[in-house]
This record gives sequence, C-alpha cells and structure tokens, in this order.
Amino acid sequence: MVEKPKVAVVLSGCGVYDGSEIHEAVLTLLAIEKQGATYACFAPNIPQAHVINHLTGQVDTVDTRNVLTEAARIARGAIKDLKEYRADDFDALVFPGGFGAAKNLSSFAFDGAEMRVHADVERAVTETKAAAKPIGALCIAPTILAKLLAPVEVTIGSSPDVAAAVEKMGGRHVVTGHGGVIVDAAAKVATTPCYMLDATITQIDTGANAVVAAVLALARGETPGSVTEAA
Amino acid sequence: MVEKPKVAVVLSGCGVYDGSEIHEAVLTLLAIEKQGATYACFAPNIPQAHVINHLTGQVDTVDTRNVLTEAARIARGAIKDLKEYRADDFDALVFPGGFGAAKNLSSFAFDGAEMRVHADVERAVTETKAAAKPIGALCIAPTILAKLLAPVEVTIGSSPDVAAAVEKMGGRHVVTGHGGVIVDAAAKVATTPCYMLDATITQIDTGANAVVAAVLALARGETPGSVTEAA
Repeated sequence: MVEKPKVAVVLSGCGVYDGSEIHEAVLTLLAIEKQGATYACFAPNIPQAHVINHLTGQVDTVDTRNVLTEAARIARGAIKDLKEYRADDFDALVFPGGFGAAKNLSSFAFDGAEMRVHADVERAVTETKAAAKPIGALCIAPTILAKLLAPVEVTIGSSPDVAAAVEKMGGRHVVTGHGGVIVDAAAKVATTPCYMLDATITQIDTGANAVVAAVLALARGETPGSVTEAA
Repeated sequence: MVEKPKVAVVLSGCGVYDGSEIHEAVLTLLAIEKQGATYACFAPNIPQAHVINHLTGQVDTVDTRNVLTEAARIARGAIKDLKEYRADDFDALVFPGGFGAAKNLSSFAFDGAEMRVHADVERAVTETKAAAKPIGALCIAPTILAKLLAPVEVTIGSSPDVAAAVEKMGGRHVVTGHGGVIVDAAAKVATTPCYMLDATITQIDTGANAVVAAVLALARGETPGSVTEAA
C-alpha cells in the first residue's frame, strides 16, 4: 500500500429516502481524510428508482433524477461514473448507506433477499475482492456485500427483517449497537449500522470513523477485531 | 440560557452551487451536537433561484426545485418553514454557506452590494438581534449579516471582490485563513470562511467547530476572541 491510502467512496444519490444518506456520506469522507487517507467519489450513471419529497415523504410521480448527477451535490462536482472505477487505483472501497443503496445500487428495498445488484456495482465489488482489497459498508449497504460475497459476516444493526434477508442470501448477521463495527477479516469486509439504528449525528460520526478505521487497518494487512458496541 | 442550548440552523437548499453547501451544513449540525447543544433546521418555503447540474456546472433550464423541500434532504425530513422560527425558542441562529445563501436567502450572487435579503430571513435575523442572541455564519452567508446588521465585523475569507461588497454595505471585513473565526462581540456575530477558501473537508470541520464554539460562548454571555488562523 502506498503511504497515503486511497479510498473510493460509492454514492447512490443525495438524500436518505432516494439516495445516499447525506450525514453518513459526508462523515465517511471526513473520517477518511482525518485518518490520513484520501477519497475519490463514484456513482453509477443511471436514473434514480424514484424521487422522494423529503419534506412529505411522498414519491414525486413527475420528477426524475440521475444518481450520478445528484451524488455530485455531495461531492461538490468531484465525482466520476462508477464505470471508471479500477480496483488497481485504490486501496479500499466504501459504501455509505441511505435508501439509494437499496433502491439504486441494488433492488433490496423492493425485492428483499431476491435483490439484484446493478452491474457497475457488482463489477466494482468483485474486482476489489479479486484484488484482495477491503470493502466497507454503512447502514443498509451491507446487504449488497451479503448478496455478492456470501458467506460473509456483516451487520445492518438490529432489524430482524433485514437480518433475516441477509441470512437468506447466505450472509451471517451480527446485531450491533451504535458505533459497532463487524469485521470479517477473511473476506476483508467491515460494516457498521449507522442510521439503521435510531441514531444521532454524533453516533453516525462514531460509526463512520469506526468502519473507516477497520477498512484502513485491513488495507494495511492488519486484522482488526469486531466491536458490537462503541466504547 | 437553558442548560442545553438550542441552535436554529437556516438551510438554503441542498448542494453548493444552488443551495446549502452540504459539508458545511452537516459539519455545523455535528459541531452543535458535539458541543453539547441541540439543533433544529429551518429553510424558507420558496422556489430556488435556479437548479445547477452539479456534475456539469450548467444551469438546468427546465428543472425547478423548492428550497425547503431540498433542504429537507440534509435534515432527513426534520425541518420547518423559516416562517415558524421564533427567536424566543432558541439560544442562537446559524447560517451555513453555499450559493443558496447568495441565491435563495438573498440575491448577493446576482446583485452584489445591491443585494436584497428574503423577508423571512430578514425577520429571523432582526428578531434574533432584537432578542440579543448570537448569530453565526459560514462561507458566503456573512454577506447577509453585513447587509442587515452593518456596521458589523465579519469574514468571508480572502476574496477581494466579496470583501469590497461587504465594505460597501457598511460591514468591516477581516481576512482570515482556514479555521479562522471573526467575532464581533458587540453585535454578537461570529463568522468563518470555510469553502470561501480552497479548503479540505477537515478544514471545514475545523471552521464549523470554531464558529459554533464562538456562537455558544456568546450565548453564555462570554466574549470569545477572533482568530485569523486556526491553531
């Protein structure tokens, strides 16, 4: 690994109900930089599954938005089409959460354990896995890793229904509290629940820092342990 | 002041080029909570001045969006119309930056020193000022305070053009570096440049924490000093 690790962050739009959860995304970027690494943002260049009015919670039946274009709001324009991601260029891959991970990157929100994963996302994950580089995921995004990398141990917090779907896809689910991080060292996967629990923004910051620390440790060839509750 | 101070945060959309700068907004909320206070988000219920495609930087001539609805993405739906803000309910008022402050909350981006401030924003600021409670502003948002509260000492970083406009509106501008914060203790105003400088996300975190610390100190009746460079 180079001296300053490079982390690719995959966004899924801009807003918890139809894209990336904004606090998780921003605090992941901050954690990466604070821990001495650099980040680059990617998102698939595809239409959003739908647009949710975040004030009312209702689906907007007229509006259409593009995942890459909306994710560019979080990245201040510094973002690339996920098709351009090459595992060779990075030391790790991280997926913040938000419904975009379950609606745009995959169909988990609609299909549960029968979910499909978008081809660009699948390629990014399998290429990173083949390069023996670590992958981190927050909130609902670990479902994608359960689907593609099972058997793999992950957490999505404490939701019995989502945990059951993870198990059905061949994943092993571990219940965790705020700031917990589950590390599957063999699979080089680290996951944390964030807003899958009823969390404060400070708890999201703790979770993002914990999962980034685990991913960077895996990238250095270390074997960090799992933590089911924050210290 | 109550034991746990309450801070109202005024958002202006969702995305640096046509709304709130997302990193500044999120890191302001985090700083407020980490420093032992609570936050509540507000935004005016008005159309955005325009919609910018954050991938290309171009104006979208077809799309229209509402400031409150888009700001709800940053607030995860927990946001109120700025008309509902009452200075009596809060200990301080804070404005994160982004072009939304200069395009939606005011017309600074289009009119410079001849800017108009939206009536709801003006009422919130003047009511807070009348209640002798502190106001913080990040990035370009201090221009609003210069317009409404002049003479007042603020920073918008180091841009000579914007500084000249601030001075023309009767404000006093102080050049600052990353993480600097300018406190006008008499006016109970604290400001920090954030992305008005070419900053990293870690520097935004430092700036947001510095301005929130100054605002909370003013709310406690203390007189924090200005800092033109971060320690």
